[in-house]
Amino acid sequence: MTKTTFSINIERLNNRIQKLGEVGALQGGGVCRLALSEEDRLGRDLVRSWMEDLGLDVTVDRIGNIIGIREGRQALPPVMTGSHIDTVRTGGLYDGNLGVLAGLEVIACLNDLGLETERPVAVGIFTNEEGARFAPDMMGSLVYVGGLDLDEALETTGIDGKSVGDCLSEIGYAGKAHVGSPEVHAFLELHVEQGPVLEEEGVMIGAVNKVQGISWTEFTIKGVSNHAGTTPMRLRRDAGYVAMETGQFARKLAKRMGGDQVATVGAFKLTPNLVNVVPNQAIFTVDLRNTNNEKLLEAEQELFAFVEEIAAAEGVSVSRRELARFDPVDFDDGLVGRVAGWAEHLGYSVKTMPSGAGHDAQMLARVCPTAMVFVPSENGISHNIKEYTAPEEIERGANILLNLMIELAQEKRSFS
Amino acid sequence: MTKTTFSINIERLNNRIQKLGEVGALQGGGVCRLALSEEDRLGRDLVRSWMEDLGLDVTVDRIGNIIGIREGRQALPPVMTGSHIDTVRTGGLYDGNLGVLAGLEVIACLNDLGLETERPVAVGIFTNEEGARFAPDMMGSLVYVGGLDLDEALETTGIDGKSVGDCLSEIGYAGKAHVGSPEVHAFLELHVEQGPVLEEEGVMIGAVNKVQGISWTEFTIKGVSNHAGTTPMRLRRDAGYVAMETGQFARKLAKRMGGDQVATVGAFKLTPNLVNVVPNQAIFTVDLRNTNNEKLLEAEQELFAFVEEIAAAEGVSVSRRELARFDPVDFDDGLVGRVAGWAEHLGYSVKTMPSGAGHDAQMLARVCPTAMVFVPSENGISHNIKEYTAPEEIERGANILLNLMIELAQEKRSFS
Repeated sequence: MTKTTFSINIERLNNRIQKLGEVGALQGGGVCRLALSEEDRLGRDLVRSWMEDLGLDVTVDRIGNIIGIREGRQALPPVMTGSHIDTVRTGGLYDGNLGVLAGLEVIACLNDLGLETERPVAVGIFTNEEGARFAPDMMGSLVYVGGLDLDEALETTGIDGKSVGDCLSEIGYAGKAHVGSPEVHAFLELHVEQGPVLEEEGVMIGAVNKVQGISWTEFTIKGVSNHAGTTPMRLRRDAGYVAMETGQFARKLAKRMGGDQVATVGAFKLTPNLVNVVPNQAIFTVDLRNTNNEKLLEAEQELFAFVEEIAAAEGVSVSRRELARFDPVDFDDGLVGRVAGWAEHLGYSVKTMPSGAGHDAQMLARVCPTAMVFVPSENGISHNIKEYTAPEEIERGANILLNLMIELAQEKRSFS
Repeated sequence: MTKTTFSINIERLNNRIQKLGEVGALQGGGVCRLALSEEDRLGRDLVRSWMEDLGLDVTVDRIGNIIGIREGRQALPPVMTGSHIDTVRTGGLYDGNLGVLAGLEVIACLNDLGLETERPVAVGIFTNEEGARFAPDMMGSLVYVGGLDLDEALETTGIDGKSVGDCLSEIGYAGKAHVGSPEVHAFLELHVEQGPVLEEEGVMIGAVNKVQGISWTEFTIKGVSNHAGTTPMRLRRDAGYVAMETGQFARKLAKRMGGDQVATVGAFKLTPNLVNVVPNQAIFTVDLRNTNNEKLLEAEQELFAFVEEIAAAEGVSVSRRELARFDPVDFDDGLVGRVAGWAEHLGYSVKTMPSGAGHDAQMLARVCPTAMVFVPSENGISHNIKEYTAPEEIERGANILLNLMIELAQEKRSFS
């Protein structure tokens, strides 16, 4: 059977990406549209106007998620795509924005084709995915799937002391709609990879089958401050040494475990931090990630056991604080296979791969079959004004989204 | 032959230690008398008045060193003792001050005994030993022995932008005397150990035979900043990892080399220092010390080779900057033996040991036979308001100083 294939209009999509990139633009490139800021409001106003121009039925829910729906023949749960348009402080034009604007491009194509679908097709813009102003990140989608209480989310205060609820009112996005409507048939999200794997391997499309689980631990080592010259090695209780030894162990642990296990010591601070004083305190973080929760637990346990052992040997104390812990998420195998199938059908090289970063799709995965499509990030750079993905790469990803969305929207049967 | 032995008056010495400790006293204990500050002036004024009360002939030289001389029968080079009275920002009552005030106690005893010595006996207070305001440390004694040009020293600007010369004038200690006079027959310095070895081993007296050579290196590692989740281990160029690996290598190198080799990573800074970002820069210091210069060079070479190797393997760049490099100093074997001999004669346990910290005595060692006497530091703590040495421990050290100074002052023959 020959499948009918459709193609998006990359010029139209790219125009929207550039236009949205002008809202909150930074000197030298990139954007700053922190969640629920004035810049976020301007970005929301712009994209909502595009949604309305495309004939979508737009609602804003109580956590500020914007959902635009194109009617189907039947009043069935829609096929949804989407992402977020808030950014980090020095964000790029693609992270999140691409997923939302590619959704609009799908709608535009359906309109151009005059295509009536069985199911409605929806595009969602989820509030505060980045978490750069309010914690936790992925807030809007988390509330959407019932993973976070609405009132708790609204009361969350940000880095500037303002609450989510007050900021939503201030920018005019404290909507009335129930959070979590509509029920969703299936969810797809197109996103830039934010890592170097596709580029490195020369692959065009990532069919994302999992999201890595995340474990962030902050360790505080307390030893004894001593003179670097007069204190023999055997009498030292060096907090910095224990921290460094643990840090390099984490690195080697990840290498030894292999697979997609990663480990990063990103933050590290010594006290008193003087060249000739043995540090009496070291505070450092270890970021562990794995798509397999058992492996992630194993990595945590090995790391925790190692730091206890080396701290005891050095005669220093160690305490640890969990900064974040998310279990890994598995996307829907069938849907992931269909992403890969469409890539092959369209002649694009494809790799089934996990996501190392968090995305709204991982929240939606709790309530419906979900998958993601990755396109390459130049030099693996993201959360940076240099973030870039070429139009021809975006086009490939958006074509997969378009064709799979249409296919899903013609399905009358719900997933079992 | 039974030697005549003399004893110092510990109450008188301790009173002076406490009185000087009131000048620049900090809340909670300790003192702050940064070199050439108003507090330093008050301390100098107090000790100079004591010198004058003891009948010493006091001169101030052009770098602000204060030399008090008690005449001998002959106009020979004096036997000198002394140290410094400037402190670090959170200094104790003993570091430096003990050496100066024990010198005054020796003079007081000579006066009490009505003892005429063959040679003059001198007590020196050297300018800016700590280096906490002006670099280099041990400045006054370094200029005294011709190791640093006087004009260069006077032009040195401190952490507050003022020059040594201006500050000397301001506090009234820009003296007229030639720096380096008088020529010295032998130099002794009583000092607190500032380390834990004597206390740990239950020994009363350290006969200091060497001062460790010091090598301070600052390393800057430059890698690539990347997302901690999306960047596979094999694609990382992690500056922080290379720094930690080097730090723990330095530690193990010192343990492996043994002897008195020590290694310390005291300062360590990552950029951007965020939990979920692979660091693109690490700046850290390694402090290496050994009493044997060949061993110290060997330690440096091993360390430098290791960091180059691990940096190359990680694909990061490494540059290094020498922050300080002093060769080890050997004290006079004969004089060190006489310190140990007097300790034994007086019934004190004694250990011949190196100094891990720098002292004025190591400068004087360039021009005359020199040795030091160490007394224990409680918990090895120094450069800290908790610095403490008990009066009975000070008494022992000062008794050795007194008896050996008298012995040296009766020598007509100069050292060959």
